[in-house]
Amino acid sequence: MDKAPFSSNEGKPIKCKAAICKKAGEALVIEEIQVDPPQAYEVRIKILCTSLCHSDVTFWKLDSGPLAKFPRILGHEAVGVVESIGEYVDGLKQGDVVLPVFHPYCGECRDCKSSKSNWCARFADEHLSNTRRYGMASRFRDSSGEVIHHLLYVSSFSEYTVVDIAHLVKISPEIPVDKASLLSCGVSTGVGAAWKVADVEEGSTVAIFGLGAVGLAVAEGARLRGAKQIIGVDLNSDKFELGRQFGLTDFVNPTLCGEKKISEVIREMTGGGVDYSFECVGLASLLREAFISTRTGSGKTIMLGMEKHAAPISLASFDLLKGRSVCGSLFGGLKSKVDIPILVDSYLKKELNLDSFITHELNFEEINKAFDLLEEGKSIRCILWMDK
Amino acid sequence: MDKAPFSSNEGKPIKCKAAICKKAGEALVIEEIQVDPPQAYEVRIKILCTSLCHSDVTFWKLDSGPLAKFPRILGHEAVGVVESIGEYVDGLKQGDVVLPVFHPYCGECRDCKSSKSNWCARFADEHLSNTRRYGMASRFRDSSGEVIHHLLYVSSFSEYTVVDIAHLVKISPEIPVDKASLLSCGVSTGVGAAWKVADVEEGSTVAIFGLGAVGLAVAEGARLRGAKQIIGVDLNSDKFELGRQFGLTDFVNPTLCGEKKISEVIREMTGGGVDYSFECVGLASLLREAFISTRTGSGKTIMLGMEKHAAPISLASFDLLKGRSVCGSLFGGLKSKVDIPILVDSYLKKELNLDSFITHELNFEEINKAFDLLEEGKSIRCILWMDK
Ligand SMILES: [Zn+2]
Ligand SMILES: [Zn+2]
Ligand SMILES: [Zn+2]
Ligand SMILES: [Zn+2]
Repeated sequence: MDKAPFSSNEGKPIKCKAAICKKAGEALVIEEIQVDPPQAYEVRIKILCTSLCHSDVTFWKLDSGPLAKFPRILGHEAVGVVESIGEYVDGLKQGDVVLPVFHPYCGECRDCKSSKSNWCARFADEHLSNTRRYGMASRFRDSSGEVIHHLLYVSSFSEYTVVDIAHLVKISPEIPVDKASLLSCGVSTGVGAAWKVADVEEGSTVAIFGLGAVGLAVAEGARLRGAKQIIGVDLNSDKFELGRQFGLTDFVNPTLCGEKKISEVIREMTGGGVDYSFECVGLASLLREAFISTRTGSGKTIMLGMEKHAAPISLASFDLLKGRSVCGSLFGGLKSKVDIPILVDSYLKKELNLDSFITHELNFEEINKAFDLLEEGKSIRCILWMDK
Repeated sequence: MDKAPFSSNEGKPIKCKAAICKKAGEALVIEEIQVDPPQAYEVRIKILCTSLCHSDVTFWKLDSGPLAKFPRILGHEAVGVVESIGEYVDGLKQGDVVLPVFHPYCGECRDCKSSKSNWCARFADEHLSNTRRYGMASRFRDSSGEVIHHLLYVSSFSEYTVVDIAHLVKISPEIPVDKASLLSCGVSTGVGAAWKVADVEEGSTVAIFGLGAVGLAVAEGARLRGAKQIIGVDLNSDKFELGRQFGLTDFVNPTLCGEKKISEVIREMTGGGVDYSFECVGLASLLREAFISTRTGSGKTIMLGMEKHAAPISLASFDLLKGRSVCGSLFGGLKSKVDIPILVDSYLKKELNLDSFITHELNFEEINKAFDLLEEGKSIRCILWMDK
């Protein structure tokens, strides 16, 4: 890593390029911005590559409510290298390769110390704003000095960004950065859900509703845990071929089920229901199908998708009483600083398949094309290279 | 145990007294009935004592639908002694003290063998009828030869009853039968929910919604597991004193919460919510309060009550995504033949408090008074003695 260009800017603002979302749903505009130096507990990082996650698209389209903020720098899946650090930053130095993660880990609170929770009691409750320790102030300004908003503590669609240390994980420089970038959000969420939340067992059966990057990563996680039957559910039958690379053994296209409900089909395929079902779309109606696709006595349903319409989850009480459970999690139940290095290691050992998630690569300047590809269902993950 | 009177009836019908529910909500009538000899996999038992559970009252009042059957012999919490056995009955002989349990355990199916489930795959799906292996036929007739229906595979409001071996547990004759009777349903359900379903940990915090026998038994289970704070929620403030005997440390009467929701009060009392909450009433609205009374990241809600109006459970999806879970269970996740002997043992070691659940004792002939006491909220458990 060439460290020379960094040191000269230490303590000073940096001018660089960023893709700015000026209005909901409009094409991002690449402009020069100014990035403040990091304050205490913060690190300024140079983004090496970034990828586009569905949540970016969600925030891009969001046109009203307190979470809709413009102009804004989107992006939260990325890999960067430390350019400079603020006060009280331990364990990170210039040149370190780091992964930003939207979900915090302070390492010191009750939840961070508990094996049962990844909901950092200090930082996790405010999830949707900017840098946190200084009153959510922005570290970005445009050429006229106006504030540009952050996204999910990361804002990776910029050559440089400022991230709180609770949102950074130092990773091995051995892993190719494009592969590592996937671990920053979606893939970790899916693999973690199978591993940490469901605790999928060898020989078990799994159904996955929605085969985007998160759903495919659930399959990959279930495969690594030795599940014997992994059923994918998606409206796009092409996903079956892709999913096979992540261990998918069976496929259900709801539009081809005729009169039958998805849950009926799955219950028939498995002789009574799966051990684990995962909802990766974010629809309460689909969660209900996922729930009744599980077997009585021990069926476990994991909700990963943020409900698209903020609809409540509705379940028949007697189906629950029959020994089923439902749980939710963010970031697949993972503690970023603890668990991401384990996933990196698993990739380096050639266990975890990350390569097959990358369907496209583009230069950062072509970022709007990445939005099109994701929206059209053509890409699973598109890597955007900052310096190519 | 005096075995002499048994042997003479082996293989023959027995005439005895039973309390018959002839019409929904009407006082039971004690009459002579005829009890068939046990068929294969069945045992005829002489009831020593029985107690009244809320589910008996529910079925007693049920005046329509496929589950409303009359005339019927209610009762499912009891202790008996084996009078005679049918073919293929292993491990039980005349004179053995046995506990009938509405929830089956075959010991051989996948679920009975799994540590994760108590939902016997062979027998648990049909929960609401008579003896099972012979087409749900009744073993009871009235003096005119008409069929009398069973309840929940037990029908203990009779001097004799016929029970499938999947519903019988042999217990130590050392435990007083009135104390043992409590383990037949409600108390086991509550203790089991804290022990097996929630797996309550030492030092944890617990909230219990509804302090009937089941809720108080959850407290007792949580106390035995070393919970440091056990909060009871009930409309009747008198329950706090009673609950202290089972480890209750705090009490919330919803009618005294003013503008605040129960969940807000509990979150304040615990600095962010309890680790475990239990819904023991059977109201979807209360389940929602129980759910948001748990802490983010790891809060677990256990539903024990059968929803009174068959209303669906409705939960805010984002509250679930914050690392919470909800699970349901019947019979507290216990496997009757495996776990009840452990509870008996715990009682004999003076760990498990059963004595305080017994608030009343009556002769069997006074059974209608036991209904009044339960309905008026005056009794937790009323023991009905068959032979006193
Ligand atoms: Zn923390
Ligand atoms: Zn994401
Ligand atoms: Zn079984
Ligand atoms: Zn009961």
